[in-house]
Amino acid sequence: MNQPVSGYLDAAAGLPLHPVAAEAMQAAWQDGWADPSRLTGAGRRSAVLLDAARQAGAAELGVRPDELSFLPSGAHALQHGVLGSLAGRRRTGNVLLHSAVEHSAVLHAADWHRQHGGEVRVAGVDPTGRVRLTEFLELAGQPGVATAVLQAANHEVGTRQPVDEAARRLAELGVPLVVDASHELVYGRPPATAPIFTADARLWGGPAGVGLLVIRQGTRWRPPFPVDEAESGRTAGMPNVPAIVAAVASLRATRADRAAEGARLAGLVERIRQQVPLSVEDTVVLGEDDPAGRLPQLVTFSCLYLDGEALLTELDRRGFAVSSGSSCTSDTLTPSHVLVAMGALTSGNIRISLHPGVQQADVERFLAVLPEAVAAVRAQAPGSPTARPGPITESRPTTATGPSTTGPSTTGPTTETGPSPDGGVLDSRGRRCPLPVLDLARALPGIEIGSELTVLADDPAAASDLQAWCRMRGQQLVEQAATADGASAYRVRRLH
Amino acid sequence: MNQPVSGYLDAAAGLPLHPVAAEAMQAAWQDGWADPSRLTGAGRRSAVLLDAARQAGAAELGVRPDELSFLPSGAHALQHGVLGSLAGRRRTGNVLLHSAVEHSAVLHAADWHRQHGGEVRVAGVDPTGRVRLTEFLELAGQPGVATAVLQAANHEVGTRQPVDEAARRLAELGVPLVVDASHELVYGRPPATAPIFTADARLWGGPAGVGLLVIRQGTRWRPPFPVDEAESGRTAGMPNVPAIVAAVASLRATRADRAAEGARLAGLVERIRQQVPLSVEDTVVLGEDDPAGRLPQLVTFSCLYLDGEALLTELDRRGFAVSSGSSCTSDTLTPSHVLVAMGALTSGNIRISLHPGVQQADVERFLAVLPEAVAAVRAQAPGSPTARPGPITESRPTTATGPSTTGPSTTGPTTETGPSPDGGVLDSRGRRCPLPVLDLARALPGIEIGSELTVLADDPAAASDLQAWCRMRGQQLVEQAATADGASAYRVRRLH
Repeated sequence: MNQPVSGYLDAAAGLPLHPVAAEAMQAAWQDGWADPSRLTGAGRRSAVLLDAARQAGAAELGVRPDELSFLPSGAHALQHGVLGSLAGRRRTGNVLLHSAVEHSAVLHAADWHRQHGGEVRVAGVDPTGRVRLTEFLELAGQPGVATAVLQAANHEVGTRQPVDEAARRLAELGVPLVVDASHELVYGRPPATAPIFTADARLWGGPAGVGLLVIRQGTRWRPPFPVDEAESGRTAGMPNVPAIVAAVASLRATRADRAAEGARLAGLVERIRQQVPLSVEDTVVLGEDDPAGRLPQLVTFSCLYLDGEALLTELDRRGFAVSSGSSCTSDTLTPSHVLVAMGALTSGNIRISLHPGVQQADVERFLAVLPEAVAAVRAQAPGSPTARPGPITESRPTTATGPSTTGPSTTGPTTETGPSPDGGVLDSRGRRCPLPVLDLARALPGIEIGSELTVLADDPAAASDLQAWCRMRGQQLVEQAATADGASAYRVRRLH
Repeated sequence: MNQPVSGYLDAAAGLPLHPVAAEAMQAAWQDGWADPSRLTGAGRRSAVLLDAARQAGAAELGVRPDELSFLPSGAHALQHGVLGSLAGRRRTGNVLLHSAVEHSAVLHAADWHRQHGGEVRVAGVDPTGRVRLTEFLELAGQPGVATAVLQAANHEVGTRQPVDEAARRLAELGVPLVVDASHELVYGRPPATAPIFTADARLWGGPAGVGLLVIRQGTRWRPPFPVDEAESGRTAGMPNVPAIVAAVASLRATRADRAAEGARLAGLVERIRQQVPLSVEDTVVLGEDDPAGRLPQLVTFSCLYLDGEALLTELDRRGFAVSSGSSCTSDTLTPSHVLVAMGALTSGNIRISLHPGVQQADVERFLAVLPEAVAAVRAQAPGSPTARPGPITESRPTTATGPSTTGPSTTGPTTETGPSPDGGVLDSRGRRCPLPVLDLARALPGIEIGSELTVLADDPAAASDLQAWCRMRGQQLVEQAATADGASAYRVRRLH
């Protein structure tokens, strides 16, 4: 009953309860409902279950039982890990360092730290999403850095981070590393070299309500928020024993098959990586090419000229659940900070993440459906060639030859340097991504090679997307400048 | 399968999963496992369940759905309620006011507030545990008070607090009231007059992992800790939909019978209140006498001259689960702040709290077993007459006639006022409560009426316990003073 439907390709957003977890939880309702700190018989039975779960979980992670605590969610565990490390090292400094592609829980913790007088520094990543380690370590070596954060593998594109080397080098600098291990832990190796690491049980079919926080012996850490006697003073509220028992049971069951299952899923991912660019035009696979350098269960690709959420909806209608954009929430319109940091297109991204129930046939069905879904979305896009086959000057963005002929009369980009654009102005203001990219792709062939087109756009994601498109297509983004009305003007030179 | 054993008389520490909750949770594993913020089919099904649970829960509480959030525990809800109100009213001031008998989660939040530069004021209670409302309001009216906290009913002795009047008067002062409604909500009325109130689902047979936080419209509140998009930005981490669905289902099922069940349990509680003092010597029922002024399901009594935890263990051996002491944790040795504030004995307390499965026959069995359990514990107490029938001078505490004959030579109380004690010195240093009280009770009859005995004790609980005993027994505690070795000297006058 708890197996996801075969079209569920969004394992990284959480899984249904693993059958082993459901069974463990129902059993624990019998003997694990009471507060394990009570001296009653029911309390003692609960404590026995909690101790056993902690020991089994710690053994699976390669840590000591007293180094493992259970918090109400992966986000709680991560925020407590990060902010507790900062609190424990207040005398050393108040600077938090993290990579540009961490989970939003780290970003929220960093915001909170900043609001409370702390400082935050961010290390960049390369185009695969891997942290620039030299920059990361250089920043870590500066005075006042109290804590550094680096995920084991990126949750949006699957790229593995060099956490072992980072932990080792940081230890030499005296800076503790906090590792978000959620996605890596499903089939990979626990980051046992890190002083602190965390994970969310939902990624391996555990129930909601369980985050794992590991603080290795000898690591400075102080509770950042009010706590009580539960979990050695690392959180507040009674431990959720049935959920903890279920989380550990499903962790062990999932990881029992990790080598075989990881290899099988890596094969399916490889098939998607190969096939998608062949069967869908204008599509790029993101992240690391080397299989050893990425998660086996996850792949993300960018479809040019479409809105990822529209494609997600189209795929959902055809029975497939995937992620798009920031892979975090449905209601945020800001572009994914991960894709921005990578310099990738922020619109039109689809993340596929596989779970043990996914078979080759499911993947083949998906690959068969994807091209028609993409075509359907591209056909719907306002201003796209298919939807509006008339002359492109009919739609608002035009390839008018002079700035004065298009858009509100106030404009004309106010650039401070360089010659005036000689290819005209394309007004994409008021159009949300991916439309400015689409407008550019359609207009650029209309100007002469070597001349420049100025694109006006006010969607913040356009900055990242126009740049990514130019790099992908071998065109040149010469300059970005603010306009008088708060939009941006992007000068693009046609190179071929 | 989920009914507690009939001897479970500790409902206020949490209940096994209500059958309705178990059923709801299993159903929600099917359709509510996904993140409700996702745009996938599974996400939407999850969101539908969450919305339905929120609406049903809000209707039961008499609030709007958007006023109700679900947090990972009652402790989280209470701390977010209190600290979020303070954060929202930072411009008004940084003083937190609470009664002296709040749940430990409030005390932990207050500690945190103080550590972060805030100020905390505490209003006292009368001997029944009810807040002194005049004092509470007077403190609330002072400049800088940002938030006031008052429980709906006390979790240790059951006394109801005047939350409606407090909320009304505080509103006139412009100070919002945060109400911990956990125990009252099971059979009583939601404190809908309060701008903020909270509860823990474990009290009505909901699963662990669900706290209710109600913030009424127009109430200033800001998240005190890092949050994300979940629950309208009031907490972090994905909502635990299956647990929330189960929590609301059991709330409704429990409260559907609340009038009849409350009346039935009140009858059983009344029977315990009447019978215990009759069948067990030296026992006092604590809290409010008027049934309208207390919870129907809870009663606490003090057994003189014994250790509550020893009695708890003795009762557990006989198949009854109850609470003792602070009713909070097993491993804290500090006396209950509630009982200290009431001026009650802090040792030898037993809290009985009833759940819907408890029948009259269970209560009668308990009442039959209690006297022998108490006798067994009193017989074990070191230095008690039964255990050590020899002359009392054999044990370390003695009724020696002069200070110099007992204890380390350094001592003799250093009092600054009044005449020297003429009844001698009783050295109870190194003896944990309830032994100092027992020593006093045995020694006082040995001195002349009108003369004084000085008790030396170093257990911090002795201060409260010796005072409580003197009041209960009509003797006079003349003075408490520090001794040179860090202990305390209590001068007690024998009045009869």
